[in-house]
Amino acid sequence: MSTRASRPAVILLSGGLDSTTVLALAQEAGYDAYAMSFNYGQRHVLELERARTVAQAAGVRGHTVVDFDLRAFGGSALTSGIAVPKDRLLDKPEQDIPVTYVPARNTIFLSFALAWAEVLQARDIFIGVNALDYSGYPDCRPEYIRSYELMANLATRAGVEGRHLAIHAPLITLSKAEIIREGLRLGVDYSLTSSCYDPGQDGRPCGHCDSCQLRARGFEEVGVPDPLLQRYGMDS
Amino acid sequence: MSTRASRPAVILLSGGLDSTTVLALAQEAGYDAYAMSFNYGQRHVLELERARTVAQAAGVRGHTVVDFDLRAFGGSALTSGIAVPKDRLLDKPEQDIPVTYVPARNTIFLSFALAWAEVLQARDIFIGVNALDYSGYPDCRPEYIRSYELMANLATRAGVEGRHLAIHAPLITLSKAEIIREGLRLGVDYSLTSSCYDPGQDGRPCGHCDSCQLRARGFEEVGVPDPLLQRYGMDS
Repeated sequence: MSTRASRPAVILLSGGLDSTTVLALAQEAGYDAYAMSFNYGQRHVLELERARTVAQAAGVRGHTVVDFDLRAFGGSALTSGIAVPKDRLLDKPEQDIPVTYVPARNTIFLSFALAWAEVLQARDIFIGVNALDYSGYPDCRPEYIRSYELMANLATRAGVEGRHLAIHAPLITLSKAEIIREGLRLGVDYSLTSSCYDPGQDGRPCGHCDSCQLRARGFEEVGVPDPLLQRYGMDS
Repeated sequence: MSTRASRPAVILLSGGLDSTTVLALAQEAGYDAYAMSFNYGQRHVLELERARTVAQAAGVRGHTVVDFDLRAFGGSALTSGIAVPKDRLLDKPEQDIPVTYVPARNTIFLSFALAWAEVLQARDIFIGVNALDYSGYPDCRPEYIRSYELMANLATRAGVEGRHLAIHAPLITLSKAEIIREGLRLGVDYSLTSSCYDPGQDGRPCGHCDSCQLRARGFEEVGVPDPLLQRYGMDS
């Protein structure tokens, strides 16, 4: 990407591999990064610690953690007592929407990002959704992101005043391996991130949920060890 | 409206005049009403008490209050130290977006409603936005609502599975007087509601903010006294 004049952008940062890579890409493109994370009752709240560490390591301009509780609604393995599925086949990308889908989660996340962007007078929001590895979530598809962007431009002061607001999803057509290569090129320290839906108390990834399996497959394809597994002595 | 088979709908309920009327309209149309309110750091938190009272009086099936804090972002008179404007002219509907605009508020509200609708398997969401009296908020316009609905159908399980999800804004073309007439027809008790942006400790409306002035003008046009003013002995 070309270097642009420095300007603010809101980056949704979960502390996972994808959003950490997006943060690095946004900074490379010359944006002043304002990271936004969510404490929404997820069972893998470890994410938030990792998000803080990642944000600090990246030297962001600001980091906001928004608190709300999606558990009141139920409906997802990530926010309720439903078990996280393990060791399921990932070879069927067109299969049903999995139980780890959190209803309208990305829509809620983007809406808070939109609010912060308006206050910051930022015209750019970054989100790490990914269509190839998207694991069946409707709100990770390109047509969803485009539609959200159209809506956002009607919803806000920026849109009314003719300043276009863009939702960037730079990973949307990349494979996990391609994402990792981008991150490694930019010097991302993936040992700081967490991808697991069901980590241990010490942050150790389970190695068996969809997210762990997709991550392992990505590092395997790149041909480098996952520094997170090395950190926990899990690289066999 | 015709009577339909009973089915769930999520109704955004602030406890104000408009959303209370919308709740009555949704119930008249045969929906099982699930009311949703927000505790977001608004200075007029009295709204929430009124929303609870209204929901109870209407006999809703469920009422969820979602907590989050928009004050961290600032940017609006309704969530920060900026003064609520009083006694300003309301005769210029095309004037600038007022300081009481809360960035992306309706987008955030609708996004939580969308999450709850998915869990309830509801295909209908009601919101009390109103274009004629809309006071300059971009996220009260018809084109915004239509755009949100398109996005919502791409964001969710319902959309993927071919069940259309509708965002209803039944007040969008009505004047305040027409809204009040609809409510009175349906037996709404407007003394339970609160519209003021800056009420007193006892819930007494200030009478001078945009919202109080629009409400007063509406009752004047209908030719009936506002029962809320009567409740506080403010009907002169």
